[in-house]
Amino acid sequence: MKIGMVDIIERKRDGQTLSKEQIDWFVRGVTQGEIPDYQTAALLMAIYLQGMDRRETVDLTLAMAGSGDELDLHDVAPFVVDKHSSGGVGDKTTLVVQPLVAACGVPVGKMSGRGLGSSGGTLDKMESIAGWSHDLSLQRFKEQLAEIGLVLAGQTADLAPADGKLYALRDVTGTVSSLPLIAASIMSKKLAAGADAIVLDVKSGSGAFMPTKEAARELAQTMVDIGVDAGRKVTALISDMNQPLGHAVGNALEVAEAIETLRGEGPPDFWSHCLQVASQMILLSKRARSDEEAREQVRAARDSGRAFDKFRQMVARQGGDVSQVEEPQRLPQAPLSQQVVAPEEGYLASMNTSALGWAAVHLGAGRQTKGEAIDHAVGFVMPVKVGVHLQQGEPVATIHARSGEEALQAEQEILSALRWSREPVESLPHFYGTIQGGQDGSFGR
Amino acid sequence: MKIGMVDIIERKRDGQTLSKEQIDWFVRGVTQGEIPDYQTAALLMAIYLQGMDRRETVDLTLAMAGSGDELDLHDVAPFVVDKHSSGGVGDKTTLVVQPLVAACGVPVGKMSGRGLGSSGGTLDKMESIAGWSHDLSLQRFKEQLAEIGLVLAGQTADLAPADGKLYALRDVTGTVSSLPLIAASIMSKKLAAGADAIVLDVKSGSGAFMPTKEAARELAQTMVDIGVDAGRKVTALISDMNQPLGHAVGNALEVAEAIETLRGEGPPDFWSHCLQVASQMILLSKRARSDEEAREQVRAARDSGRAFDKFRQMVARQGGDVSQVEEPQRLPQAPLSQQVVAPEEGYLASMNTSALGWAAVHLGAGRQTKGEAIDHAVGFVMPVKVGVHLQQGEPVATIHARSGEEALQAEQEILSALRWSREPVESLPHFYGTIQGGQDGSFGR
Repeated sequence: MKIGMVDIIERKRDGQTLSKEQIDWFVRGVTQGEIPDYQTAALLMAIYLQGMDRRETVDLTLAMAGSGDELDLHDVAPFVVDKHSSGGVGDKTTLVVQPLVAACGVPVGKMSGRGLGSSGGTLDKMESIAGWSHDLSLQRFKEQLAEIGLVLAGQTADLAPADGKLYALRDVTGTVSSLPLIAASIMSKKLAAGADAIVLDVKSGSGAFMPTKEAARELAQTMVDIGVDAGRKVTALISDMNQPLGHAVGNALEVAEAIETLRGEGPPDFWSHCLQVASQMILLSKRARSDEEAREQVRAARDSGRAFDKFRQMVARQGGDVSQVEEPQRLPQAPLSQQVVAPEEGYLASMNTSALGWAAVHLGAGRQTKGEAIDHAVGFVMPVKVGVHLQQGEPVATIHARSGEEALQAEQEILSALRWSREPVESLPHFYGTIQGGQDGSFGR
Repeated sequence: MKIGMVDIIERKRDGQTLSKEQIDWFVRGVTQGEIPDYQTAALLMAIYLQGMDRRETVDLTLAMAGSGDELDLHDVAPFVVDKHSSGGVGDKTTLVVQPLVAACGVPVGKMSGRGLGSSGGTLDKMESIAGWSHDLSLQRFKEQLAEIGLVLAGQTADLAPADGKLYALRDVTGTVSSLPLIAASIMSKKLAAGADAIVLDVKSGSGAFMPTKEAARELAQTMVDIGVDAGRKVTALISDMNQPLGHAVGNALEVAEAIETLRGEGPPDFWSHCLQVASQMILLSKRARSDEEAREQVRAARDSGRAFDKFRQMVARQGGDVSQVEEPQRLPQAPLSQQVVAPEEGYLASMNTSALGWAAVHLGAGRQTKGEAIDHAVGFVMPVKVGVHLQQGEPVATIHARSGEEALQAEQEILSALRWSREPVESLPHFYGTIQGGQDGSFGR
């Protein structure tokens, strides 16, 4: 039977499933620019409203993964583990987890992206280090992975180009927040990047793409299903994003906090998060037989200084100024710092985390539209967590700004993102659950 | 508040209603080419799947009607009545109804279209008459309407250009068969054409756009609602299209049958249909106080020969060869005619009317894609109706074809469109109901 785009649109419109052949045909047509954007847009809206079942979502992901280069890193690494975070405020996990895992003997070559809106991006953070470059050829990527077992790069190959085209259209047609489309977008890049195993860190809360635990869990389950059906090992963590991760928000500030954490001095919530993600990666790569054993290895990688060494090696190999890693006070510093204090006595009841992310963007730490320049020095450090009790006037955050005016605006944005209570408030959990392989893992609270 | 297209798409996607301001902004943007087709396509699919309420549908229709010229014919006609048929096989109603109504003293200036697919078009039929032209300036249109009270033209003004743009996109994005979009498309053109009153002939059945009575009734009700809210008088008839209307299918053959009917000799089902549509137009224009009085006037217009005279005048004024009207055997004739006979004894149980329409298209009477040339002479005459009892070998139809090969194909298509029964079969009704003004009319069976 001849496949046609109007047929495909009408099937999905009417709530029917698309065949593998139809999905392959569509993705090939999008990649080659043969399907007009208006037909793709109509199909995306039909998918948004009618959904896709597991088989369709897997077929879509595989077709997108196969739309460009598909890396095979097995010539330089016997087993490749990757991680993905759905994005959040203060999320510098990659900077700590990758050296930890590499120091445990599991090679990690990761391709990262830039930040947009209230979520930061790993490349932006790393570029706080003078000279550090994400721009590696595939050959250099492989060489570095073989030699030191750790690479952090921008996209070095033409991975899943169909995803880029579909995402650009979704962004302007109200079809971003579709579960199968989000899952296929994320997983197609991970599959194309050649990972044998993937740990997914799916955030839920006021600073996350998925506001509710249920939505985060559904996305996590869908991505795990895709990974399993594609023959990969996948673990998804559903983690809290109702407050920033760690204390620092802003590029150089986050690099400094990552370095502290690798040295054993970071914020406890952030270390706990890194330990969990890294140990899951160790478990998937079969370097440990139990969760506890994996955690022991990760702790040892930190405590011995081996993880910090890995990070330093990676920075050096990619042209970065190692002195800034050894003395983080040499990282870019904002001209002005200003304290924010508690406006009343009370318990910190909740944070509008996305608003906190936007406060950092408005300071210059992030971008509102693609391609904008950012200021690596600015941001804020906020060592308070939901549930803490503060007296009036006690410090809530330290803002690092370019001007008094911008600092004042950030202070107002931070304070109006916080809610206070006279009654004690429970602290927030770090994780809501884990989904492993093809089956449901624990899912509490 | 600033209006943006992504906002509009997301509102409709989420099942909310669009404001009049949003709809006006969208239609203006489409008309001026300022909204990218992919955004329009996404909104059309969201409307298809989430629907529009009555207020939104009316706002959309009025915005589309106001997107180009809006005719005012009151300088030449005190009260303007129009009709619209949703299209069918053998539907030559306009050719008969307009002269009937004009002969009753109600001026009718109608803009018609061409056929596409299994439905024929009034302009194509009229062009069977040598020299007849649909191409009138607005000034000539008005002059002829003032002088003889009857005009049948192509589109003489830039009516509802937003509809043309939206329809072109709907056609390639699987969003044609959306009730509010169909209703807005039809009614926007009628409102822009300046009708004070409109009779809608909504067909239901195997040869119609709306296959079920329920779908036809819903479309009719929506269009009546739009008309009422726009301050027009509207009556909708839900009529049967489970068999061709009259006997003739094909352009010159249908013109000949229309002429016969104006002369009192046409097929009874077709006359009954014309009588009903024409009398509803007379009623809406207040030329009669009751249905029976309107029917009397229409019958008198036929029986006196005044209606046929009006038709002849119209043909003459628009450059047509009047001798072909007076002697329809002078209309184009196909080189070959061939009988189709009943393959067995039995009752004619049903007809796949759309397939019969396609048989005529394949003979050359219609077009599969826009702009194709057609052959005015070809088609078939099929004097049998559902319920009739035939002996094996009795005639079912006469095919008029260009070649034996095409005639053979048509014979096969016609025969395979017919179902036979050994048990008696009830004949089909002409009408399923009427919807008037803002309230429900009768709706039987």
